[in-house]
Amino acid sequence: MPQTLPPDGLQLRSIISADGELALSLVRVPTPAPAADEVVLRVEATPINPSDIGLLFGAADPATLAVRGSGEQTVVTARVPDAAMKAMAGRVGQSMAVGNEGAGTVVAAGSSPAAQALLGKTVAVLGGAMYSQYRTVKVELCLPLPAGASAADGASCFVNPLTALGMTETMRREGHRALVHTAAASNLGQMLNRICLADGIGLVNIVRKPEQAALLREQGARHVVSTSSPEFVEELTQALVATGATLAFDAIGGGRLAGQILGAMEAAINRTAKEYSRYGSSVHKQVYVYGSLDPSPLEVVRNFGMAWGLGGWLLFPFLQKIGPADAQRLRERVAAELKTTFASRYAREISLVEMLEPETMRAYGRRATGEKFLVNPNRDAGA
Amino acid sequence: MPQTLPPDGLQLRSIISADGELALSLVRVPTPAPAADEVVLRVEATPINPSDIGLLFGAADPATLAVRGSGEQTVVTARVPDAAMKAMAGRVGQSMAVGNEGAGTVVAAGSSPAAQALLGKTVAVLGGAMYSQYRTVKVELCLPLPAGASAADGASCFVNPLTALGMTETMRREGHRALVHTAAASNLGQMLNRICLADGIGLVNIVRKPEQAALLREQGARHVVSTSSPEFVEELTQALVATGATLAFDAIGGGRLAGQILGAMEAAINRTAKEYSRYGSSVHKQVYVYGSLDPSPLEVVRNFGMAWGLGGWLLFPFLQKIGPADAQRLRERVAAELKTTFASRYAREISLVEMLEPETMRAYGRRATGEKFLVNPNRDAGA
Repeated sequence: MPQTLPPDGLQLRSIISADGELALSLVRVPTPAPAADEVVLRVEATPINPSDIGLLFGAADPATLAVRGSGEQTVVTARVPDAAMKAMAGRVGQSMAVGNEGAGTVVAAGSSPAAQALLGKTVAVLGGAMYSQYRTVKVELCLPLPAGASAADGASCFVNPLTALGMTETMRREGHRALVHTAAASNLGQMLNRICLADGIGLVNIVRKPEQAALLREQGARHVVSTSSPEFVEELTQALVATGATLAFDAIGGGRLAGQILGAMEAAINRTAKEYSRYGSSVHKQVYVYGSLDPSPLEVVRNFGMAWGLGGWLLFPFLQKIGPADAQRLRERVAAELKTTFASRYAREISLVEMLEPETMRAYGRRATGEKFLVNPNRDAGA
Repeated sequence: MPQTLPPDGLQLRSIISADGELALSLVRVPTPAPAADEVVLRVEATPINPSDIGLLFGAADPATLAVRGSGEQTVVTARVPDAAMKAMAGRVGQSMAVGNEGAGTVVAAGSSPAAQALLGKTVAVLGGAMYSQYRTVKVELCLPLPAGASAADGASCFVNPLTALGMTETMRREGHRALVHTAAASNLGQMLNRICLADGIGLVNIVRKPEQAALLREQGARHVVSTSSPEFVEELTQALVATGATLAFDAIGGGRLAGQILGAMEAAINRTAKEYSRYGSSVHKQVYVYGSLDPSPLEVVRNFGMAWGLGGWLLFPFLQKIGPADAQRLRERVAAELKTTFASRYAREISLVEMLEPETMRAYGRRATGEKFLVNPNRDAGA
């Protein structure tokens, strides 16, 4: 395949000024020629994950969104409330590229055999700045997709799959035998359900709505409880008795749910306890918060003794902790099961320009379960 | 010394009935003759620790305290609210002896050389049921006090000293370099301050009142901040910058303080951070809750990124985790520094009968800083 080094391409940027204005725009950036161990990727599919939305909008108030210009000249602005500017201090004045992961075609390659071997291939990349038409990246960041897999198939093959596998891996390493997951009807939750079914791991799925419960049950989930049920805590406790789950991963973060899970775990343990302990059960109960769908304060009624933990969990520190060999083992499983266990579904595919349309921004900014967006930065640009 | 096996002695008991009545009373129990590896202790000094108060009163409502009878026939009753009975289920109908630790004179001993060697000695015991005139206990639970130390000197030589040492030990094992402590003017807090001064460990003491801050400063504490200050969060942040503390031990448990500490740790780290991270700093920040002076819900505003943990901490699981050799090393330091680093002060010494007087119960039940009570079960009984 002949090499084609595109001279430049569009890239989405997010910047917050010192006086609290967020601005999103498209800039045309030159494509760096690849070094020996680099390739140039034409990005054809990149998902909008909750973590991308965090970087994209910062702490800006969505009610203040304003748009000027059109097409490639569109500029979106919004106000960051004064109180939130402290947390934004580290990024003020920096024009930031966005987009954790994506996939596409290698259109140019450096001189090394490893780079040359990727020429023309469809690869996935976890490299940042993926809301770009072209990205020059190191070969080591590329995962060649299996034959028959499209860029769209591989667009989300890092963050969600490795996070879901990280949950079951953490469960084993920390001595638990079953899991609880919240916001369980998400793409990630459906993946986790498929992993747990395949691996024989008990999973308690917590959702907000009956239709989400139905969706998971259709996919074989055995334990699904809805926070909308008036008997939620009792139903959760019964599912915890049935599975023995003492570890939860929580995508929500705010409100009472994390504490309710710890309390229900303690109640489930005590249903079979033989002896009174003034400090509660000695079984360690853990909730890891890995998302922040609800930014309001956590409220925890401590009715679960002293053997408990609540903490943050993030994919990248987890991968560092387990080391390169184990991380590679997880990546290989993702590649092998890309179109089954780790398949993602998207509500819509959009272009870079469409990412800046107010209605579209409101739709993906909602981060609603089952409404994930896929961006094709080369969608309107021809291929 | 001649052996004297007292035929029986008084013991304080706490029981909660199925219909939610707590009853405290003194019962006369026979003294078991010691087996070969046991000794009989005449208990002369035993502290009222917060953990003892938890077992003594359970979830009873102090406003409903009623007393009938007098002297050794005193019976105290109180109501346990219906909502709290679920948590009490494990102890309903069981007449429970109380009192974690204490010290006294060995008045009889079993046939083994180790037991015989303790005859007439003043020893401290971590054995439960110490609100008793006599206790028959295994030799291995006894710590002989150094020459010149009285029973009162040794009464509190396990729970507070080992908890304070457990905090600095946890700090080292989990890779932190300085500590934060709340309710820092307590007996335990003063001990921790002395340990940190001796060992060169940075300590941020958090207190509620200016007079508590003054007390700690008189004892050499370098960083003391009071929650009563209007600039509390800023003063805490400055102390965290100065010490680099990323681990806190919290005796309070409820309310906003634990979350404020995590937030101030993150702010302190970010004052010297060079680069923006959308997930907050990657430095792990940890708060361990080891007490529950405030039983209200924990409220946590998550303004500290994703590298954080909040959890329960208890002495006994900690000692199990570090193993017998390291636990012994800690106990030996306590014995060596019993009258200096690990000295306790008591507001009053009372008898078993006085433990059941309403005004006295209200006084020790407050668990107020600097108002610790010492019980001498043989005080009115002659020696």
